[in-house]
Amino acid sequence: MSFLSRMEQVAKSRKSNIVLALDFPFEKPENCSKLFSKAEKVLESVHEYICAVKFNHHLILPLGTFDGVQKLLEMVHDFGLLAIMDCKINDIGSTNQVIAEYYYAAGFDALIANPFIGWEEGLKPIFDVSRNLQRGVILLVYMSHKGASEGYGQTVIDPETGGKVLQYVLFARKALKYRAEGAVVGGTYPEKIREVYAILGEKVPIYSPGIGAQGGDVKAAIEAGARYLIVGRAITQAEDPSKAAKEIRDSAKRN
Amino acid sequence: MSFLSRMEQVAKSRKSNIVLALDFPFEKPENCSKLFSKAEKVLESVHEYICAVKFNHHLILPLGTFDGVQKLLEMVHDFGLLAIMDCKINDIGSTNQVIAEYYYAAGFDALIANPFIGWEEGLKPIFDVSRNLQRGVILLVYMSHKGASEGYGQTVIDPETGGKVLQYVLFARKALKYRAEGAVVGGTYPEKIREVYAILGEKVPIYSPGIGAQGGDVKAAIEAGARYLIVGRAITQAEDPSKAAKEIRDSAKRN
Repeated sequence: MSFLSRMEQVAKSRKSNIVLALDFPFEKPENCSKLFSKAEKVLESVHEYICAVKFNHHLILPLGTFDGVQKLLEMVHDFGLLAIMDCKINDIGSTNQVIAEYYYAAGFDALIANPFIGWEEGLKPIFDVSRNLQRGVILLVYMSHKGASEGYGQTVIDPETGGKVLQYVLFARKALKYRAEGAVVGGTYPEKIREVYAILGEKVPIYSPGIGAQGGDVKAAIEAGARYLIVGRAITQAEDPSKAAKEIRDSAKRN
Repeated sequence: MSFLSRMEQVAKSRKSNIVLALDFPFEKPENCSKLFSKAEKVLESVHEYICAVKFNHHLILPLGTFDGVQKLLEMVHDFGLLAIMDCKINDIGSTNQVIAEYYYAAGFDALIANPFIGWEEGLKPIFDVSRNLQRGVILLVYMSHKGASEGYGQTVIDPETGGKVLQYVLFARKALKYRAEGAVVGGTYPEKIREVYAILGEKVPIYSPGIGAQGGDVKAAIEAGARYLIVGRAITQAEDPSKAAKEIRDSAKRN
């Protein structure tokens, strides 16, 4: 079954469209075992309110792909959840392939990639490896931080028409063309979610990060068309992560 | 001393402007110890012909930042060489900061970043952490693969003038403005190196990957203005890496 369908199934059976971003601040290398316990504890206390877990370098770098992170991935899967690696992969094809192979060998169900690298010798090898293993590729379309306007928000010349087009509109069209299993649009920009949703419809689900700590609003993102909300610090750094996750899950239900 | 000056010194004393890309194909997790030995062996046999070593996820993912890679970094430094992490960092600021902190804690001297993320809450935290620790930031300006034309080669609207400008020209101007310690331009595109060199002059050195396996030519890249050549498979997969490194080093001398 495709990653797209598996996400739909898990979200339906869990009655949750919350993707937990399992991110923690920098820890000195000698304290890295603390990070593993923290991650384990958060996962145990929030798993029933989420549908997937997104990992980033916050855990890969200190814990290692095949040490700590692989154990956490087993936990994620044992809870019936899916795991996304937010590597924002943006290298040359041969490197992208090796990166994807390692993440998939560790157990990830999907990777996030930056479409800025282009298709040939860029995205193509990632899609090839992913399709071959029935894993998913999620493309960045508009990120959640302020500087996103410089790149994702810039105006470019459309190579097909020669006219002006916004970069993220071009990326959204590519996500549709390549049948990406998801498109990331910052929850801090509901109007961009709306524009991207107008292109993607229900074919490519929108994942929205930036909810909570970065200022993104749950209801605004959902109403604009986000399918999944990526929530990190608002859960991981909450006094009671379980309560925070439940509240965000409840407020994020799509009508 | 700044990373920029340290690179100049090492290159001068070694009489080499070759940066070894220490990349190896995917290995099954259970065979990862082989990778460490391979990397160690290549380093031992070529260290006198190079000035720095560039790491990518090829080693970080299987060996771990604070296990295998940190040991290799100690070797690199013991040989008097510098170490660059080619993470092509392109995340939001708070994540970029954590990523940079981990790589610097492991011992890297510089990181490669993608200027597409923009300055605010993007590149700025990377430059802040790096300057604070006297490490270097090298910015991608034009990559070496075919698909690079889609993003790096696209025409964009210059936010300052409203006129048309090539994306990589804009990136080169940013590298100069932020005083990046290096700019990456694919050795497969000597004409792009020439254009970028016209903007950067001797202020921001150009690093050119793609020499050898990807078809880039040593002399053409150097003549166009590349200061450092990044060479991977042409050395790591050579029958005699030492001989290959020496030959490339000799042919890459700048006049």
